[in-house]
Amino acid sequence: MTALDSALARWLDTHDQRLHDDLFAFLRIPSVSARSDHTADVAAAAAWLHGHLERIGFTTETIPTAGHPVVLAEWRGAPKGAPTVLVYGHYDVQPPEPLELWTSSAFEPTLRDGNIYARGSVDDKGQLWLHVAALEAHLATRGALPVNVIVLAEGEEEVGSAHLAPFIEQHRERLACDAVVISDSTMFAPGIPSILSSLRGLAYFQIDVTGPNSDLHSGMYGGAVVNPATALARIIASFHDADGRVAIPGFYDTVRPFPDHVRAGMRELPFDETDFMRHLDVAALGGEPGYSTLEKLWTRPTCEVNGMLSGYTGEGAKTVLPGVSMAKVSCRLVPDQDPETIRQLLERHVRSVAPAGVRVTVTALHGGHPWRADLEGPLYDAAARALTAAFGRAPVITGEGGSIPVVNDFARLLNAPVLLVGFGLPGENAHAPDEWISQDNFRRGMRAIAALWDELAPSRA
Amino acid sequence: MTALDSALARWLDTHDQRLHDDLFAFLRIPSVSARSDHTADVAAAAAWLHGHLERIGFTTETIPTAGHPVVLAEWRGAPKGAPTVLVYGHYDVQPPEPLELWTSSAFEPTLRDGNIYARGSVDDKGQLWLHVAALEAHLATRGALPVNVIVLAEGEEEVGSAHLAPFIEQHRERLACDAVVISDSTMFAPGIPSILSSLRGLAYFQIDVTGPNSDLHSGMYGGAVVNPATALARIIASFHDADGRVAIPGFYDTVRPFPDHVRAGMRELPFDETDFMRHLDVAALGGEPGYSTLEKLWTRPTCEVNGMLSGYTGEGAKTVLPGVSMAKVSCRLVPDQDPETIRQLLERHVRSVAPAGVRVTVTALHGGHPWRADLEGPLYDAAARALTAAFGRAPVITGEGGSIPVVNDFARLLNAPVLLVGFGLPGENAHAPDEWISQDNFRRGMRAIAALWDELAPSRA
Repeated sequence: MTALDSALARWLDTHDQRLHDDLFAFLRIPSVSARSDHTADVAAAAAWLHGHLERIGFTTETIPTAGHPVVLAEWRGAPKGAPTVLVYGHYDVQPPEPLELWTSSAFEPTLRDGNIYARGSVDDKGQLWLHVAALEAHLATRGALPVNVIVLAEGEEEVGSAHLAPFIEQHRERLACDAVVISDSTMFAPGIPSILSSLRGLAYFQIDVTGPNSDLHSGMYGGAVVNPATALARIIASFHDADGRVAIPGFYDTVRPFPDHVRAGMRELPFDETDFMRHLDVAALGGEPGYSTLEKLWTRPTCEVNGMLSGYTGEGAKTVLPGVSMAKVSCRLVPDQDPETIRQLLERHVRSVAPAGVRVTVTALHGGHPWRADLEGPLYDAAARALTAAFGRAPVITGEGGSIPVVNDFARLLNAPVLLVGFGLPGENAHAPDEWISQDNFRRGMRAIAALWDELAPSRA
Repeated sequence: MTALDSALARWLDTHDQRLHDDLFAFLRIPSVSARSDHTADVAAAAAWLHGHLERIGFTTETIPTAGHPVVLAEWRGAPKGAPTVLVYGHYDVQPPEPLELWTSSAFEPTLRDGNIYARGSVDDKGQLWLHVAALEAHLATRGALPVNVIVLAEGEEEVGSAHLAPFIEQHRERLACDAVVISDSTMFAPGIPSILSSLRGLAYFQIDVTGPNSDLHSGMYGGAVVNPATALARIIASFHDADGRVAIPGFYDTVRPFPDHVRAGMRELPFDETDFMRHLDVAALGGEPGYSTLEKLWTRPTCEVNGMLSGYTGEGAKTVLPGVSMAKVSCRLVPDQDPETIRQLLERHVRSVAPAGVRVTVTALHGGHPWRADLEGPLYDAAARALTAAFGRAPVITGEGGSIPVVNDFARLLNAPVLLVGFGLPGENAHAPDEWISQDNFRRGMRAIAALWDELAPSRA
């Protein structure tokens, strides 16, 4: 087992209190990107980060966007042939409300039961900060890094990162790199370092069914006029077969199965299905047969109803035959499904099953591509060694059922592999009151990332 | 062909203007039962009717209820052995709003293009009034009626007739009769007198599907958790087979087919399906195969969705897996289906098709029995002759897809056959601006009802 270089380890031990103090100072700045009354605080957080990166030896620039600025810091003194790594994080945070549900104040970081509580502690200031600390450890002990490093910290992640893709595109030459490293996710469980290897994509639709030109009396017209609500229910029911597989013709055609060893690893994760069901208060789970729950969530595509509306939905009875009905339906996608192809397949299917007597439109509302890491490259080997060094066990491979659009942006625009290595934990309350990061994870995270720079040096590859 | 007695016909001709004037006076009273600021007007309409019935020779009483009063008038001087007939109508009207859509004022009756326009002209003051006029014709020309007559006019029909059934029950002895005659419906088409022979019943439910204990992120949970909206759609889809027949087991078991000659008569009615579709702006009709559109509406039971709600239904996309879903579903019933039995069948069916992983409740919200006239009795023979005399052609038999609860109340509580003979016309705007009754139908209606009393006399039977 690789160990973290002892000088780096010693420096991190020695400076532990100061690194905590600095993080706490960073967390005290209420950089709520969603609220215009916090614009100055967002700018202050950018300035604070800028100052620190400059002090530890990075050439730093705060670059305005149409929204909040990007802090871009570079250190390019690595030996010839060394790779360039881009570290991405964000210095903005979610609004802290409802304030009354916080045990200690959202912007007064507090250590309690081995956790650091504050808005942004895990999402993402704390995880961004452990990268900065690892960089400082290298520069302070050796005066150099084994790889070239670009730090890109944005201030709009919590409001949709609208200006990030254009920024990357505009600075594509300057941001050219061999790997992107992001710590903005969680580990599978305490003590189990995790590499997040896949994200599902999205194809979101609205289906509108139009029947008669107005709501009708269900007594006077019922039984002869095609009911748009019934028609919509039958359309939705046709999306799955009796077993729970998506029944839209062609839906699975471009699905590239996950490697057997990745699936096997997921099945071996300590996942308690009974606890999962108890947490949700359901007596049974569903979905596609032949896959474990985690495989269903991480590796398989879905077709879910997100909303449904027709006719009278108030209290009591109204005898109306609705004139229209509407559903929001979205598919979670896995590689190599394409949102536009899925739109075509869904629309064709809906048209083929819709009864005569109603008109149906399918409107695409939102789409995003799925992403999956190629886990075979040197980046992942290095990460595995670094995490093993810091946590005393090899990392597991996890997936994520949702989407993180910036990951696709980096992969696509910079054509570099992306490593998602997070140090949060389940229940961390990101976006909720009492957000926290484990102090132990914070410390091990700094060590893991410090080790990662060494593991990425050409001599180790 | 039987003709109307010439003295009656002459009297109606001679007094035509006065009968119009009286109706117009009745229509000018804005007896809107739904609005407390019109309570005095409702009472004024009752008093006006009371006064007139007394003047023409009826023993009249205005009997208070917990709501608006009942005007009860009796004439019991018919020869021994003559039947007793109860005439039901209502003197209250719908609110006139929106006022700006009336061509002439709602409470200023106006003759235009051969129609009398006013709120209540057809629903139901005009149709109640033509009964009173026919009674007066008899008493004025002969000093007597060939049958005993009870006139029962209520003031709460437009707000649900909440106090009528208790009133009938309380006065059951006094209201005992051989037939109930009601004119509060429409003819099939101009020139085609119609006997409304059936009403559908109702069994109205709310179906609630509960999945996880809160809305979930559709990315993080989609594909493993049973979606309550999808589950509800599949439940609703199971209510019909691919052909449009209701597929709830046992649903049709107690349906008593309509007589072949009644079905044949309905198929011969001049019903323009193309026009019906154009009016609704639909390209095709649906429903149970093997029946004409009118048969579907009048003689066959249905299962219709009245409303449906789940998850996010606002603008744009929200990636939520809903925690709950809800549908309002109602069955229209035909004899001898029973609302309570249908509830049991539907509930059992819903439970049998609901997937594991969600909980489903079925709540009965409203129910009413179907009604069908036995068209073979002397009442209907007399009505056929009277209508033929007034309109120059035999009446057709129609049905009604909705319910008129008071009809069941009379049939059940008084155990008497009910004759529904209406003189409204399609497009009459009952409950809408520019309500009208055809002046020709008003005149022929008075003659038909005047003839009916003679046709019901024992000498004619």
